[in-house]
Amino acid sequence: MRVRKKPWAEKELAENCHVVKIPQEWKGKWKEYFQSDGPLYVEIGCGKGRFLAQNARIYPENCYIGMEQQASVTAVAARKLEPEMKNIALLCERAEALADFFAEGEIDRIFLNFCDPWPRKKWAKRRLTYKGYLAVYEKLLRAGGELHFKTDNRGLFEFSLNEFCNEGWQMKNISLDLHHSGIENNIMTEYEEKFSEKGEPIYRLEAVSRRKE
Amino acid sequence: MRVRKKPWAEKELAENCHVVKIPQEWKGKWKEYFQSDGPLYVEIGCGKGRFLAQNARIYPENCYIGMEQQASVTAVAARKLEPEMKNIALLCERAEALADFFAEGEIDRIFLNFCDPWPRKKWAKRRLTYKGYLAVYEKLLRAGGELHFKTDNRGLFEFSLNEFCNEGWQMKNISLDLHHSGIENNIMTEYEEKFSEKGEPIYRLEAVSRRKE
Repeated sequence: MRVRKKPWAEKELAENCHVVKIPQEWKGKWKEYFQSDGPLYVEIGCGKGRFLAQNARIYPENCYIGMEQQASVTAVAARKLEPEMKNIALLCERAEALADFFAEGEIDRIFLNFCDPWPRKKWAKRRLTYKGYLAVYEKLLRAGGELHFKTDNRGLFEFSLNEFCNEGWQMKNISLDLHHSGIENNIMTEYEEKFSEKGEPIYRLEAVSRRKE
Repeated sequence: MRVRKKPWAEKELAENCHVVKIPQEWKGKWKEYFQSDGPLYVEIGCGKGRFLAQNARIYPENCYIGMEQQASVTAVAARKLEPEMKNIALLCERAEALADFFAEGEIDRIFLNFCDPWPRKKWAKRRLTYKGYLAVYEKLLRAGGELHFKTDNRGLFEFSLNEFCNEGWQMKNISLDLHHSGIENNIMTEYEEKFSEKGEPIYRLEAVSRRKE
């Protein structure tokens, strides 16, 4: 997502109560951070945070962490959160560093929404559903933990289906046209709303880690 | 596929050397029928037989059986085969009766190409990738045997992905746009050629039975 650089971003990130400044310090201790035993849901690449914030409002029993690498975008997301929301946190960090912030088996669910398709073959390793990333997710998800993935990019979805299959994840609720498949309670991202208005299909799947207790 | 009724169909079916009249008699004995130890590949709903015949010509070491329930269509398929082809047979039979013609583990590969999508929900059980059918295929395929499935129907493909996942088949080589995915040696059906000329995507997957030796 492209966002004009915000001169106030650094200040917002430093002062906003939802932005976690040194997330490494909370690795393995997110229940303590949230003072909650609710399940921990992490969105990688949360953009302006609409999807995450809406989830957090609807499901106050869950704890939500959004990761977003662009400072200006994270700042926009942070600014839109009501200060009294207790079940949401934002990290201005890159996906590559995920294992620095979460302990093994600490995450209950990962959301990947409309991540960069990196369309050229030589970029395959950068796609967030590349097998190298799946191995990290598997380590950080609890047994039976799930990854929920949405994209509008057919090539990326095809690639992802094959990666999940090859790596032995159990998939379910695969949709090749989410907005016409009768799935209820779909919470849209900013991008999804714009894109689906054009009538293009949204692809979605859920994948369960094969990690055992 | 709709084909005008052919007055000569019954005669063709009765006389053509490739049409097996009482396939029940060959259950468990197809190697004997073909006088070949080559793998047995079965296409369910072979239509006018172009896909099957082309396979049989290119891969003479394999044995091919096409099933087609419409007499006129089977007759057209039969008429197009050179009498000297030794590795192809046609059955004018319904998919439901599959287990009457093949013994457990006798089939090496099943092809499903552009089968009826049965779009209404209440028709789901008639779709050839419904779990009831998958259970039959699993019984008749050898351990490690594969099912290769192509369709132009997005809804049917979505349904099928979920059925294969739910029933524990291992999928691979999933394609959401076969003719732009760089897959080589794709042999087209009559229908596929017409359809893909319109620029619409063809979906394809391979699924491996979880049957153990």
